[in-house]
Amino acid sequence: MRKFTKYITLLFTLFNLAAYADDGYRLWLKYDRITNPQVLQNYQQLIQGLMVTGDSPTIKAAKAELETGLSGLLDKPVLIVQKLTKGVIIVGTYSNTPILAGLKLESELKDLGHEGFLIRSVALEGKNAIIITANSDIGVLYGIFNFLKLLQTQQSIANLDLAQSPKIQLRLLNHWDNLDRTVERGYAGFSLWDWQKLPDYIHNYYYDYARANASVGINGTVLNNVNANPLILTPLYLEKVAALADVFRPYGIKVYLSVKFSAPIEIGGLETYDPLDEQVQQWWQAKAAEIYQLIPDFGGFLVKAYSEGQPGPQKYGRSHAEGANMLADALKPFGGVVMWRAFVYNADVKEDRHKQAYNEFKGLDGQFKDNVLVQVKNGPIDFQPREPFHPLFGEMPRTPLMMEFQITQEYLGFSTHLVYLGTLFKEVLESGTYAQGSGSTVARVIDGSLENHSISGIAGVANTGTDRNWTGHIFGQANWYAFGRVAWDHELTAEAIAEEWIRMTLSNDPEVVKTVKTIMLASRENTVNYMTPLGLHHIMGWGHHYGPAPWIKDKFRADWTSVYYHKADENGIGFDRTTTGSNALGQYYPPVAQKYASLTTCPDEYLLWFHHLPWDYKMSTRIPSEKSGHTLWEEICYHYYAGAASVPKMQSDWNSLEGKIDPEIFRHVQCMLKIQAKEAIWWRNACVLYFQSISKRPIPADLAKPDKDLQYYQNLSFPYAPK
Amino acid sequence: MRKFTKYITLLFTLFNLAAYADDGYRLWLKYDRITNPQVLQNYQQLIQGLMVTGDSPTIKAAKAELETGLSGLLDKPVLIVQKLTKGVIIVGTYSNTPILAGLKLESELKDLGHEGFLIRSVALEGKNAIIITANSDIGVLYGIFNFLKLLQTQQSIANLDLAQSPKIQLRLLNHWDNLDRTVERGYAGFSLWDWQKLPDYIHNYYYDYARANASVGINGTVLNNVNANPLILTPLYLEKVAALADVFRPYGIKVYLSVKFSAPIEIGGLETYDPLDEQVQQWWQAKAAEIYQLIPDFGGFLVKAYSEGQPGPQKYGRSHAEGANMLADALKPFGGVVMWRAFVYNADVKEDRHKQAYNEFKGLDGQFKDNVLVQVKNGPIDFQPREPFHPLFGEMPRTPLMMEFQITQEYLGFSTHLVYLGTLFKEVLESGTYAQGSGSTVARVIDGSLENHSISGIAGVANTGTDRNWTGHIFGQANWYAFGRVAWDHELTAEAIAEEWIRMTLSNDPEVVKTVKTIMLASRENTVNYMTPLGLHHIMGWGHHYGPAPWIKDKFRADWTSVYYHKADENGIGFDRTTTGSNALGQYYPPVAQKYASLTTCPDEYLLWFHHLPWDYKMSTRIPSEKSGHTLWEEICYHYYAGAASVPKMQSDWNSLEGKIDPEIFRHVQCMLKIQAKEAIWWRNACVLYFQSISKRPIPADLAKPDKDLQYYQNLSFPYAPK
Repeated sequence: MRKFTKYITLLFTLFNLAAYADDGYRLWLKYDRITNPQVLQNYQQLIQGLMVTGDSPTIKAAKAELETGLSGLLDKPVLIVQKLTKGVIIVGTYSNTPILAGLKLESELKDLGHEGFLIRSVALEGKNAIIITANSDIGVLYGIFNFLKLLQTQQSIANLDLAQSPKIQLRLLNHWDNLDRTVERGYAGFSLWDWQKLPDYIHNYYYDYARANASVGINGTVLNNVNANPLILTPLYLEKVAALADVFRPYGIKVYLSVKFSAPIEIGGLETYDPLDEQVQQWWQAKAAEIYQLIPDFGGFLVKAYSEGQPGPQKYGRSHAEGANMLADALKPFGGVVMWRAFVYNADVKEDRHKQAYNEFKGLDGQFKDNVLVQVKNGPIDFQPREPFHPLFGEMPRTPLMMEFQITQEYLGFSTHLVYLGTLFKEVLESGTYAQGSGSTVARVIDGSLENHSISGIAGVANTGTDRNWTGHIFGQANWYAFGRVAWDHELTAEAIAEEWIRMTLSNDPEVVKTVKTIMLASRENTVNYMTPLGLHHIMGWGHHYGPAPWIKDKFRADWTSVYYHKADENGIGFDRTTTGSNALGQYYPPVAQKYASLTTCPDEYLLWFHHLPWDYKMSTRIPSEKSGHTLWEEICYHYYAGAASVPKMQSDWNSLEGKIDPEIFRHVQCMLKIQAKEAIWWRNACVLYFQSISKRPIPADLAKPDKDLQYYQNLSFPYAPK
Repeated sequence: MRKFTKYITLLFTLFNLAAYADDGYRLWLKYDRITNPQVLQNYQQLIQGLMVTGDSPTIKAAKAELETGLSGLLDKPVLIVQKLTKGVIIVGTYSNTPILAGLKLESELKDLGHEGFLIRSVALEGKNAIIITANSDIGVLYGIFNFLKLLQTQQSIANLDLAQSPKIQLRLLNHWDNLDRTVERGYAGFSLWDWQKLPDYIHNYYYDYARANASVGINGTVLNNVNANPLILTPLYLEKVAALADVFRPYGIKVYLSVKFSAPIEIGGLETYDPLDEQVQQWWQAKAAEIYQLIPDFGGFLVKAYSEGQPGPQKYGRSHAEGANMLADALKPFGGVVMWRAFVYNADVKEDRHKQAYNEFKGLDGQFKDNVLVQVKNGPIDFQPREPFHPLFGEMPRTPLMMEFQITQEYLGFSTHLVYLGTLFKEVLESGTYAQGSGSTVARVIDGSLENHSISGIAGVANTGTDRNWTGHIFGQANWYAFGRVAWDHELTAEAIAEEWIRMTLSNDPEVVKTVKTIMLASRENTVNYMTPLGLHHIMGWGHHYGPAPWIKDKFRADWTSVYYHKADENGIGFDRTTTGSNALGQYYPPVAQKYASLTTCPDEYLLWFHHLPWDYKMSTRIPSEKSGHTLWEEICYHYYAGAASVPKMQSDWNSLEGKIDPEIFRHVQCMLKIQAKEAIWWRNACVLYFQSISKRPIPADLAKPDKDLQYYQNLSFPYAPK
């Protein structure tokens, strides 16, 4: 990649070839020369040299990052100094950097814990300096990335005083990657893990993956799909896993594995996987010991059990807790954890799918060992464009619940739609559970502060792949970034995170920042509107989750059909989850249940999630002052049309930035928005036409009629759409 | 990718992170500042400005490439001039560049044909200039790439006079890419073609793929696997194919498709695919018209018929010629060609597989329409590390035979072994068929000059994929490069091509050039020695073609086993293809047949390919002066051991270049060689131990005994090895 001349940009405005423009590989870790001359000059004056103490792999990584970053951003070599001079940046752990002793930072640092860091402008021996220090090497590395971010986003570094530590302990990516390198719900190419060439061949991008994660504070990665292949636990593969762990270790990233609960039979040669069987227990203990022999800091196991065909302890009449605890016992001597997923629902159970996880897990509260976390998806169904928060949050106070977000856009247009998820993450985390009255947010359940847990965790299902820009859509990078930032500090606003990302990835130009931020912050609501407005959910295609298919019915599992969820009939539409229906609302604390149960207080966003209403229901009867005179049917139509119409607006906003953004990135997003515009209309038309075939009501006259009929959309077929 | 500071390289020698070093994406099209100051100064003096005539997409591409290339290599902006000044480069087709008229180049250009080009230092109006001209836009583009190569390889440009035109007309890549993005025999990630996002989303690497191909003169690409999915011919996919064709067109690259012969049933709704059926003929005619409506310069069809389960005209008692001609008639009105593969062999036919293609095709000579080429693999079996040339070459004088080489290393260690194929390509092309006496080389059959054909072609099965460096192993790039160069000019030596590639890709440092050239030129023979020495062949694994498995037997197809080919028994080893055996040699012209039939003249390389010999056969009885006193068994052992020992030698040679090569590329090759060294021993041990289990003879005492036993190797399993 080396050096390219400054004439390239010029050339590419002449001819749109863009052979060596920005392909997005560097993510947000771009260290191009700072474009604002005043800012550049100011930084150049304030940063004169670098003094790094320590030589652990992590400190070496921190130093290399700082040197690369500074020499790029400041466009001058960075002087490595051995003694204090003006404008030096002092880097190292506090205990390892004697020059800092005079600053008496002990108590401040104590509050920052193992991963926190401190960045401060100080005067030492009469000389101005910037210190980046921490209790541990990894804290120092986090400090470095945060310091570089200040420069990348052109913040003042004149009087720095920045102390941070993460609110949640385990901040993990979950890769749903298979051993054949396909990725379940992966839309950015294939798996990053080149199993065939591991352990000997180490792709350079493994390092950059680690750098990117460390830069946002992600400290763990589950390498393989929760629909786990037991081969991952065989020596052939463990050796490969260890090689990846070696690469990630200096960046503070632990490796975890998804395990198949029946592995003792499949690769262990046993005749049972009953968690109460002694041989089974011994097999897992020996397996754990084998893993820790290779990977001393191995993180632990993620388990999908007794769900969607995966084996579980229920096969032998054992509970989730009994299964999880057996694995927890095996990992305990080595410090590992079990993350046991609560994403369970059973086709044989006739109960509303919404309620099943709660029903299975609520009663197990208090039965899990202390190194078990129960990992709960953000909503009760399955990563829909919008869901209410999962009713388990706040309902298992004696169990650390781990949040599972989806970064990959399984139900949000794959990697072709621009949907910023910062707003989704925040919406969920800020939801009030009322478990202990107001203020009992989901975030406080997750970070352990509400219920005083000693471990806490959050996971995001990764959207990375072999695409050159990692995530397919460059705005997918923003979701990886936002997940990491929210995991580190869930009090950050979606807007603040978006702005950081824009400045680091696209430009510090105020117009770019403003315009792109507007696009990003509206994007998720736009998509909800053209996909599943007003609380609709799970009306996507069969076999893939790409396009609309509200007509899916009569499959071997009712809870995999669309009609199960929208329940549209000649009388109306929506899933009654109040007391007159499934009463899923009964699983929430009363203030939540009451709010959603009442038609006057239930927000539009969840209306059809919780209520079945007549097509001609007058929206104005709910909150008259705010509502239109539309019927429900009309309101559905207007939402779909508004959603689809929002994409051309995004396009024109984006187009206004031509010349202010790298030409390759500019063209990339243009192409993607073109696809999104087409597909938003596809969603709108397919859904409106289908629901119209049931409602038998006209599309409001001021909306343009679809130019294709329902049958056209029902006949579309995509034999090789990614799944 | 933009700009990175010059300090990066320095940093990476300090800390081997190599985040932004050379990841190989740019292939051989690197335009970094010329490192030799004298050369740089000289070029800067001789190149003062640029005058380009024309504005077709191809000329625009040529201009952009030249501007990018020159501004990078010369590290200064290139002045675009409107009138003649000193040191100007004049670019354009001859007819479109009036300033060249005075040079009277008409007759010279006539000889260069449609794709040739002329680069010459001239004086015009008393001013020194360099002209790059041609009869066509694409000729100009080829000239540009060749001119840039002169600079990249630091040749003198003082007195240029370079006229070139390709010797073979159709120079094609064959992609064995499936619609689900897997690649059959692809080892560099997944398919480049992102079908899901086409036609709307155009990856930037599509352009770079086209640039790379054009730079070596490749002018066509078959996008999909010869085991063809008929869906490629449906409107959904043709629209996507057309989008790729639009990208490739300015670079002179035509798109071709592999078609499934039974498509009229599968996607056409017919009840037959009999080529003599009128409805079938009409269906293909309509399909061709539909394709050309979308892609006016569509190249044509590649067909694998009646082979390895693929349907063919034989189903209806028709011949290959009848099948090919039916398609040829459909394409003829639009100028398309049919490439009909001769890679056929039938499990039900008891004849030596070596002979089957010849037996099926020889009698059809003269029966093919004039827009049909018969595409023949280089050897009679299947891309083995070494094969004698295919006996059909020279035996079908009235039919243009197209060469099919394999660039992807199906039987040559996938993308993990360094095997330069330039020597393999040349070995085949220079083989004498004796069809018209001496000088009747395979190359002259292929280029049409021996038999006066009006069309000619050569294809290489591509080794590209989504890996960031395109080919997995960076030396795989050399094979892509070498294929293109040999296709353009089969008289170039393997050594000259290697040197070009090294200089463009790695360094102009004489020591690098010399050392790497030595590695490359020996590499294929090294691999033959540790895999299949002395004419052994087809002894690889079952299910994948990665490792050794000479023990494969008793499968449902004998011709897919290893024992079918090596025929080792207690008496000896080798396939008798002389008159006492299958007499495959009878398919060659007498001078070839006689040479290979005689034990005194048959080269060691083909010994066991054509002869079954006793284990104790004295090698010295063949050509005593040259031969050792070894028995055949011992000779086999020594070859395997010499092959495996050659890799540590390559490693130490490579290691000697540390600091002279980009650190990321250096480390990449180091890793790969480490794998190759391990796997060479795997091949050696598995083969020697297996053959020993039959020969019952000791491994020569001076060779280290394998540290594992045969069973160990037989039990190895690689569930997800790429296939």
